Amino acid sequence: MRPIRLGMVGGGEGAFIGGVHRMASRLDGRFSLVAGALSSDADRAARSALAIGISADRSYSNFHEMAAAEAARADGIEAVSIVTPNHLHGEIATAFLTAGIHVICDKPLTATLAQAEALAKVAEGADAKFFLTHNYTGYPMVRQARQMVEDGLLGRLRIIQAEYLQDWLSDTPDPDNKQAAWRTDPIQAGGGAIGDIGTHAYNLACFVTGELPTALCATLSTFVPGRQVDDDARVQMRYASGAQGHLWASQVATGNENALTLRLYGELAGLSWSQEAPNSLTYTPFGQPSQIITRGGAGAGMAAEAVTRIPAGHPEGYLDAFATLYREAADAIEGHPPSTLIGLDQGMAGVRFISTCQASSAAGGAWREL
Amino acid sequence: MRPIRLGMVGGGEGAFIGGVHRMASRLDGRFSLVAGALSSDADRAARSALAIGISADRSYSNFHEMAAAEAARADGIEAVSIVTPNHLHGEIATAFLTAGIHVICDKPLTATLAQAEALAKVAEGADAKFFLTHNYTGYPMVRQARQMVEDGLLGRLRIIQAEYLQDWLSDTPDPDNKQAAWRTDPIQAGGGAIGDIGTHAYNLACFVTGELPTALCATLSTFVPGRQVDDDARVQMRYASGAQGHLWASQVATGNENALTLRLYGELAGLSWSQEAPNSLTYTPFGQPSQIITRGGAGAGMAAEAVTRIPAGHPEGYLDAFATLYREAADAIEGHPPSTLIGLDQGMAGVRFISTCQASSAAGGAWREL
Amino acid sequence: MRPIRLGMVGGGEGAFIGGVHRMASRLDGRFSLVAGALSSDADRAARSALAIGISADRSYSNFHEMAAAEAARADGIEAVSIVTPNHLHGEIATAFLTAGIHVICDKPLTATLAQAEALAKVAEGADAKFFLTHNYTGYPMVRQARQMVEDGLLGRLRIIQAEYLQDWLSDTPDPDNKQAAWRTDPIQAGGGAIGDIGTHAYNLACFVTGELPTALCATLSTFVPGRQVDDDARVQMRYASGAQGHLWASQVATGNENALTLRLYGELAGLSWSQEAPNSLTYTPFGQPSQIITRGGAGAGMAAEAVTRIPAGHPEGYLDAFATLYREAADAIEGHPPSTLIGLDQGMAGVRFISTCQASSAAGGAWREL
Amino acid sequence: MRPIRLGMVGGGEGAFIGGVHRMASRLDGRFSLVAGALSSDADRAARSALAIGISADRSYSNFHEMAAAEAARADGIEAVSIVTPNHLHGEIATAFLTAGIHVICDKPLTATLAQAEALAKVAEGADAKFFLTHNYTGYPMVRQARQMVEDGLLGRLRIIQAEYLQDWLSDTPDPDNKQAAWRTDPIQAGGGAIGDIGTHAYNLACFVTGELPTALCATLSTFVPGRQVDDDARVQMRYASGAQGHLWASQVATGNENALTLRLYGELAGLSWSQEAPNSLTYTPFGQPSQIITRGGAGAGMAAEAVTRIPAGHPEGYLDAFATLYREAADAIEGHPPSTLIGLDQGMAGVRFISTCQASSAAGGAWREL
Repeated sequence: MRPIRLGMVGGGEGAFIGGVHRMASRLDGRFSLVAGALSSDADRAARSALAIGISADRSYSNFHEMAAAEAARADGIEAVSIVTPNHLHGEIATAFLTAGIHVICDKPLTATLAQAEALAKVAEGADAKFFLTHNYTGYPMVRQARQMVEDGLLGRLRIIQAEYLQDWLSDTPDPDNKQAAWRTDPIQAGGGAIGDIGTHAYNLACFVTGELPTALCATLSTFVPGRQVDDDARVQMRYASGAQGHLWASQVATGNENALTLRLYGELAGLSWSQEAPNSLTYTPFGQPSQIITRGGAGAGMAAEAVTRIPAGHPEGYLDAFATLYREAADAIEGHPPSTLIGLDQGMAGVRFISTCQASSAAGGAWREL
Repeated sequence: MRPIRLGMVGGGEGAFIGGVHRMASRLDGRFSLVAGALSSDADRAARSALAIGISADRSYSNFHEMAAAEAARADGIEAVSIVTPNHLHGEIATAFLTAGIHVICDKPLTATLAQAEALAKVAEGADAKFFLTHNYTGYPMVRQARQMVEDGLLGRLRIIQAEYLQDWLSDTPDPDNKQAAWRTDPIQAGGGAIGDIGTHAYNLACFVTGELPTALCATLSTFVPGRQVDDDARVQMRYASGAQGHLWASQVATGNENALTLRLYGELAGLSWSQEAPNSLTYTPFGQPSQIITRGGAGAGMAAEAVTRIPAGHPEGYLDAFATLYREAADAIEGHPPSTLIGLDQGMAGVRFISTCQASSAAGGAWREL
Repeated sequence: MRPIRLGMVGGGEGAFIGGVHRMASRLDGRFSLVAGALSSDADRAARSALAIGISADRSYSNFHEMAAAEAARADGIEAVSIVTPNHLHGEIATAFLTAGIHVICDKPLTATLAQAEALAKVAEGADAKFFLTHNYTGYPMVRQARQMVEDGLLGRLRIIQAEYLQDWLSDTPDPDNKQAAWRTDPIQAGGGAIGDIGTHAYNLACFVTGELPTALCATLSTFVPGRQVDDDARVQMRYASGAQGHLWASQVATGNENALTLRLYGELAGLSWSQEAPNSLTYTPFGQPSQIITRGGAGAGMAAEAVTRIPAGHPEGYLDAFATLYREAADAIEGHPPSTLIGLDQGMAGVRFISTCQASSAAGGAWREL
Repeated sequence: MRPIRLGMVGGGEGAFIGGVHRMASRLDGRFSLVAGALSSDADRAARSALAIGISADRSYSNFHEMAAAEAARADGIEAVSIVTPNHLHGEIATAFLTAGIHVICDKPLTATLAQAEALAKVAEGADAKFFLTHNYTGYPMVRQARQMVEDGLLGRLRIIQAEYLQDWLSDTPDPDNKQAAWRTDPIQAGGGAIGDIGTHAYNLACFVTGELPTALCATLSTFVPGRQVDDDARVQMRYASGAQGHLWASQVATGNENALTLRLYGELAGLSWSQEAPNSLTYTPFGQPSQIITRGGAGAGMAAEAVTRIPAGHPEGYLDAFATLYREAADAIEGHPPSTLIGLDQGMAGVRFISTCQASSAAGGAWREL
């Protein structure tokens, strides 16, 4: 049991998701972070590296240089985490994949469909794996929901409702809020609410139901004056199975911190799960009382148990779920691929979803094939 | 303080909403039920009347006859409650209004727009008042929400989200379920989920926000095989103010009993209320902790207090809210009209909403002006 | 179906519980309020009577006079509601019971054990019935809980936990708060939190479990300076069955409006119910997921159904539950006694509980037999 | 930033809390686990060490040997985590403290008061620090609650209510459930519910309020036949300040997984927190609406922010809170002691609490000084 040597691109001072990836990579002890291009500013990269225990000789400010140098070392990194703004994902992933280094990339895949398609081609021919951190799929009760759908407990699905509501962008953010700055920049982010959180909700719905919509009708709104991307997105979706779907993503829904929820209604039962109370789900077989199925509890099945670390009633949270993706990436890197990994296909689907929503909305909320 | 003499049309054996109207009319002691055409079947009408204490000489099986006879009596009814299937509302209301008898009518106004328009003309010239029982507007915390919007606590509204989810029609109902039978008959009901509960949600959103949408795009679905009306409805709405609205009504959302909820997000704050926990609402001024405002509690304002019967923590429910509409109708009949009454205008808006949704859905979910 | 003629003693201007009794008596149309001694002040009594539609000739200011006059009328009252401060219950009930008029009395039975014992003797020989309005026993899900215990679903009970938490007396109340004034007067109330709400919790636990404790150890506290009665009460209880019980009543638990809750744990299952969300209970068979059993829903049994007025998801509240006691009293008066009525025995048990708690607490929290 | 070298005693195959300590020690990257006596069985110790990446030459089966060997190495461990059954804590801690190695010890301090007193003497003279992992004190909203009490927002406390309810021991456990075996053995555990979870609740109440009770009256019950320790504990407590406290710990409260809750009521406000929903607390200033204060949200103060890793709405859980204790131990070891550490004093108080409860209960629930 030797930890996998990990590098990181992005995630320097003031970043949010970089720290999350680092904690997630550490929780199960499967990775050891030994190199980084934490910033493209050399001083900032060095300071950031020092602060988190990366030795100076393995701190880079240029990811191309890092990929080359690390690939050349006998003790070079085996995998890299990409935690930069979205528009850089493709280029960075390309550099490492072509260097034979596995990539663990934050979502969405890229900022544009063109970037995604270019990356897909690179990945196809690469000798390294690509993992996309749609971290909400790591929650044990999300796995439970997925298993229940697979096992047919809900019957044929009728309604798929996904919501992802936040409020941190309800007003014009502080100009020195780095997170807000790039996430509301159309170039760096590729979209607003629809890209930053809408893709999470979209991916979650697909992950749990196993279904992808075939057409959609979207209304993207920008409520905060001066903002250049959408901050609220509404999408109605049709599925080939006859199911109806709806997705609502908002960053201006005041009173919602990170309210990602999924509600599914099938011929036999209904089910709901909420990210802010992630350790249980509600399951209602038609004609019976609702049941509260808890992580680690009597009703939890094998899929949930496989990713449960501690007993029922001891809450697992966001970092635990994120860490599960790292653990599964480690398993896959070591040759034991679980079936649940999120990769390029799901990433492509997500970027295609974003661009189709943008096209539909630009056409006044017209229906568009996916 | 003499009770107003009340009659009832519909509400015989096996009915649901008739009993609700009777309890609601009794709670505050403002009405006394003295006459009824509880069924169009004479025996059934008589048996039903006997069972609830209406004397035999004032039990009718024909509402025309009832209107005439009661109008002719010195101690005749002053008001009538109409609790029949929707397609009869117009004709019955016409009979009583033209006889100078006030009408308290269950929702929706009528089963078709044509019926609604015909009734509107009658009502305009009538010497009697017309009240529509969109009973959810009677909840104290709905009044509180309305006042908070009016007082500007939410700022300009951005998002108006209304849901009304039930599950009792998730499967084909028992053939002898009288409620299900007429409510899923397109002639008697005029629509399925969109008409039976969608109008409630629509009216509630209008009541609280004071805004009416100008365009919508609807997807009405029928999930249960053989059903002749929609059992799930999705409506995206645009408001002149720039707000976006969404309404979801479903009768197949298993695990939801009567989950009418309203969520509002404005420039300054968010607010949410749920009918299944009606004695509080959550209010979040942007940048502050969420507050739980309770009926009878410290944060409740005058609009809520005016319709609060018992102290905080002593739950009021559905019948209390319904009774408030009866109390306010009594006030109006006695010449003290409150501003909150739901009447023909709102009823017309509701029927127009139904028919526009049906038209949009029939056109593949195309946008339609309202 | 003729309404039972009802009178009322107490409940004049500014009263709380009088209005509740009146609404409760009206909801099902089984009573008609025709006489009252709403105040011992003649002017106040007359004004109060006028305001609620009692004719002047049947408004009294002296309950002895009222009992005599009404007993003498052919159309005299058949039952009387007593809604005065506690110390008057015994004397008033005596007057009406000896006049052959049924008594519906607010709780607790009396302010002292001596008063209770005197009344018990009168009631034993009387030709009229006595009902005590421990109204929380009227909730459908309380009936459900009782049935589940009776049916053995919980197995032998181990732990009986009752809480009744309020906060309205967290500070010294306004001097003109009439409710607070008499409820914190040891003579009129007979006790503070332990009497006003502790007896409700005690009665509820007994009602649902069918068990009465045999010994207790109590700590009554007075936290608000100058208060002459307890405002917080803690009682540990032992049952003959081996169960352990605990009761906590507080009027200074800021943030709790009327939080009456019951939690039961048996060999086979656990169950919890809360008055502020009264339309469901949580039931957990050991080794299975928790179930949410709702009023009117799939898991509700016959005992709950018998007192359910409206469908699942349409909340019933405090007044509905209170009205159920009136309905059952009407049934009993008309000769159809249900098994659930709360009468003198339970009232005596409640007063004995209060006085034993007071004795235990005065002895420094020593154990006392009940 | 070099990780502190850590060892572990206990926590071999089949253990629960050992794995928790390891994850907690890794999350922030402040420790590196390099040695262990994971079992007293040599084979088991070796297998367990191998499985978690401890090299064979630093796997021990005797903690005395481990303390000596590691103290002698230049790269020996600087700290050790003790995760054995309680009765061994004292002896093991003694071995490492006297070897100059810092000790991070699971709770309760020891199985008996005598063991605790012996350890206290050793610790006093030792050149190494001692940390007790009352991990629930690591939750950000527990820190928030503590700060709010310190800041006087609740005013003088009146009522301190702590509950810790579980149900995993509701029945006789599987004989091969290792966790259940030692936790229900009076020698190894030193107590049942009162020791395993009661001390957590006791410590939490002290941590948040800053107050220790001066007297108590306890009822320890054993509900499951054949069990040799208590599985339910009730404790009434008096504080010097005049506050009243109550603690309820149960392992047979079916339907409760790990329901540790704290409710505080003071002269000015009430506050409640629950471990199963740890990311918020409810705060109610008397006469104002309740506020939901969330981790990372607008109302969270500096004490909570200091231990918050990720933004509001992204749930932190049990491991995050546990990891905070490790982080603070690391800070202290490196010479930056925060004020919140739980050490020997709190450990002694906890063991004294257990033994006083046992004495009170043995005397029939008599009051005892603490």
